[in-house]
Amino acid sequence: MIQLYWKNATAEVVGSEHGISQGDLTAISDRLSAAVDAVRSQAEAGQLGYTKLPARTDYRDRALQLTEKYRPGCTDLLVLGIGGSALGNIALQAALNPATYNLQSDRARGGPRLFVLDNVDPALIKDTLDLLGRRLKTTVLNVISKSGETAETASQFMIVRELLRKRLGDDFARHIVATTDANKGTLHDIAAQDGYDTMVVPDDVGGRFSVLSPVGLFSAAMCGIDIKALLDGAREMADACKGPWSANPAGMLAAINYIAMTAKGKPMHVMMPYSNRLYLLADWYRQLWAESLGKAHNKAGAEVFVGPTPIKALGTTDQHSQVQLYREGPNDKLTIFLEVEKHPKDLRVPDVFGEIPGLTYLRKARISKLLNAEKLATEYAMAQSKRPTVTIRFPEINAANVGAFIYLYEYTTSLMGELLDIDPYDQPAVELGKRATFALMGREGYADVARQIKPFTKIDRNYLI
Amino acid sequence: MIQLYWKNATAEVVGSEHGISQGDLTAISDRLSAAVDAVRSQAEAGQLGYTKLPARTDYRDRALQLTEKYRPGCTDLLVLGIGGSALGNIALQAALNPATYNLQSDRARGGPRLFVLDNVDPALIKDTLDLLGRRLKTTVLNVISKSGETAETASQFMIVRELLRKRLGDDFARHIVATTDANKGTLHDIAAQDGYDTMVVPDDVGGRFSVLSPVGLFSAAMCGIDIKALLDGAREMADACKGPWSANPAGMLAAINYIAMTAKGKPMHVMMPYSNRLYLLADWYRQLWAESLGKAHNKAGAEVFVGPTPIKALGTTDQHSQVQLYREGPNDKLTIFLEVEKHPKDLRVPDVFGEIPGLTYLRKARISKLLNAEKLATEYAMAQSKRPTVTIRFPEINAANVGAFIYLYEYTTSLMGELLDIDPYDQPAVELGKRATFALMGREGYADVARQIKPFTKIDRNYLI
Repeated sequence: MIQLYWKNATAEVVGSEHGISQGDLTAISDRLSAAVDAVRSQAEAGQLGYTKLPARTDYRDRALQLTEKYRPGCTDLLVLGIGGSALGNIALQAALNPATYNLQSDRARGGPRLFVLDNVDPALIKDTLDLLGRRLKTTVLNVISKSGETAETASQFMIVRELLRKRLGDDFARHIVATTDANKGTLHDIAAQDGYDTMVVPDDVGGRFSVLSPVGLFSAAMCGIDIKALLDGAREMADACKGPWSANPAGMLAAINYIAMTAKGKPMHVMMPYSNRLYLLADWYRQLWAESLGKAHNKAGAEVFVGPTPIKALGTTDQHSQVQLYREGPNDKLTIFLEVEKHPKDLRVPDVFGEIPGLTYLRKARISKLLNAEKLATEYAMAQSKRPTVTIRFPEINAANVGAFIYLYEYTTSLMGELLDIDPYDQPAVELGKRATFALMGREGYADVARQIKPFTKIDRNYLI
Repeated sequence: MIQLYWKNATAEVVGSEHGISQGDLTAISDRLSAAVDAVRSQAEAGQLGYTKLPARTDYRDRALQLTEKYRPGCTDLLVLGIGGSALGNIALQAALNPATYNLQSDRARGGPRLFVLDNVDPALIKDTLDLLGRRLKTTVLNVISKSGETAETASQFMIVRELLRKRLGDDFARHIVATTDANKGTLHDIAAQDGYDTMVVPDDVGGRFSVLSPVGLFSAAMCGIDIKALLDGAREMADACKGPWSANPAGMLAAINYIAMTAKGKPMHVMMPYSNRLYLLADWYRQLWAESLGKAHNKAGAEVFVGPTPIKALGTTDQHSQVQLYREGPNDKLTIFLEVEKHPKDLRVPDVFGEIPGLTYLRKARISKLLNAEKLATEYAMAQSKRPTVTIRFPEINAANVGAFIYLYEYTTSLMGELLDIDPYDQPAVELGKRATFALMGREGYADVARQIKPFTKIDRNYLI
């Protein structure tokens, strides 16, 4: 299974100003134990819906059942969703299928192409729908929204449903699968009226914790990803996270992140996979970390304005972009490398250019060896500049390990919430923007917000240059 | 042309603790003027190679000439490059061609598909080469490296050249265009020996400033991008940047960024386009900003450890991911929105679901209106939380405006270098990682580094969990 390696975040390696010492850990050991106990109690009391997902065979089987029904003959799967209803889907696909997946022929691929429309960019939507064109007849639409009223997903859905209706006639509803609230809400009602197959967005699981629910499972299964192994990996990690903090990867990961941000001046947490396939897991992590931990108030309601800023980077690519800053800029980052021991594929540099001294060392080298050497070299160079790093090691990239990684970070987020004394499951700051959007779009009942926002709608030419 | 709107970064809107007041500007006005003068002098003295690029019709015409030669019959263009030899190419393609470009049929697209291999990820390389398969016969390879010894690009090149040689026989050299040093170096020599067409990586332009040189121009032209307009837009921006700091967009952008990071506690600079097409410009910006400004020493050699951290985000998508943190977390960010007035395409929500109150307001709305309303709503919500934001307005997304944007940020980077009193054109911290990679790969002459790195190569099981 995946493992955490944290020696290069220690005072022993990068010095006590920037690295974690035994004393730092001892100082918060009681709080860490309390956090571990609190989260375990919440989980055991059934309050943390996401912790139940690895064992929800009913969700899994429903996703598999619908996959069996919809996959034959399906050339394209179009997912409408945003935030937690898109980032997990995209991350699973990127991690567990080739980067060229959508470019392969229908036959080579086996499953449908996958398009996740996670923005209301008009060019993106139009280009995608134009591309589908006549293939709409063999396209399955999976619309994901708990309420059905998220502006982005709702507007896309209105467009695509109408397009399908026009192209396919009464048959259109047989191309749509809705993932939504089990009992109520706008999308639930439309699905019932039109007669779509449905899956459940669990009541007790927030969007950013929902990838292992039907939200993430259906598109993954449709694209040939082994969702049983995904859930098994998550369950295995759940077991690994049951120990005392110092003996479980989530406890240690929370300890390191928390000490880095509070005691070592590291408010920025960089996730840097040395693998293109794992790169978009960093986008999923960005939402989980930012939306869960960026909070103005603690549990008692006092203003705190806390939260580390998650940043994504890619090795080796960002060695030629960000590492200059990471090594020589302010020492304000904790970097988490993701490393793959056995890559999904490999190839060897041929034995050519033997007469060119500067290239000799590359002859016959495996590319995976070069990639992992660059990671180690960067880790070493960072340590020489007293920059702490942690590595999460993937023995290989498979569904089980990705499931384990997801669960590891979800559970770590819960622990971080306890340590920071904030609620990691709400997102109050998102509301005002939503209401302001309603006001600007003329939705009824938002006239007061519309008045407040009015000054912002006019460009003040004194500040235009 | 593109314009900067900075009212929502002012003290008037977000308060004087976080916003920029007239006093803040006055306090550094002399330094800003000195920076503007210094950079102008350097440019006039011919020391800033990138400032000459918009007028280099020779580079442009060479790229166009080779495009005319290679584009007919070319189905796929494979670019090998990393860092400054890839990020600009990728950004131009994403900005000025549809997201679905590579998925379109050869006929619909007109030009070749574009693949930029900017990493030594074995799965990425293998998957891409497998995908090309028989199309290698109609593939053009553009290898970009000044020296030819960048490990990533060199190893890829050795692989792909050999593959082409095997598949195409003696004809292989007619599929390769090398962009490299004009007179010397490993790639220059190989190109001469094998007989490739070549273009120049200018001597006086660093990688991250090279997108408007042949490095970026050839792949753009091959994919149908109007590189004349691109350069014209850059030249127009160069003219706009000639005024005193308060009357030119680069001067004002530098002033805002500098004050935000030094006087307002904002070391993180978030670039957040409300447009998928402009999203990858943020990756190009990340390199420019981080590698230029993240420096341990000032010009006099004293330790300073400065540099803002560039972060990329995407509207509206990241409203559902990062904005919770941006509004409620520590007030440590300056956000730069990119806004598009007229999107490349548009579509309208149909007049459906009239009976559902929660969706009524979306009926008949243009998607572009919704997207831009969400941007304004976020700007408003950020202001309510005293978070400063700046907007760069694109009247539309075209080559001229993208060229202007590129030049704006390059020139702003030069000004920031002056203000921070560091050299924005070097990257000393990248060297150690390169040398460590050589050592780990067994390159001759690096035995001493190999000895130093040895302890890092062994996993210490006490820190593995």
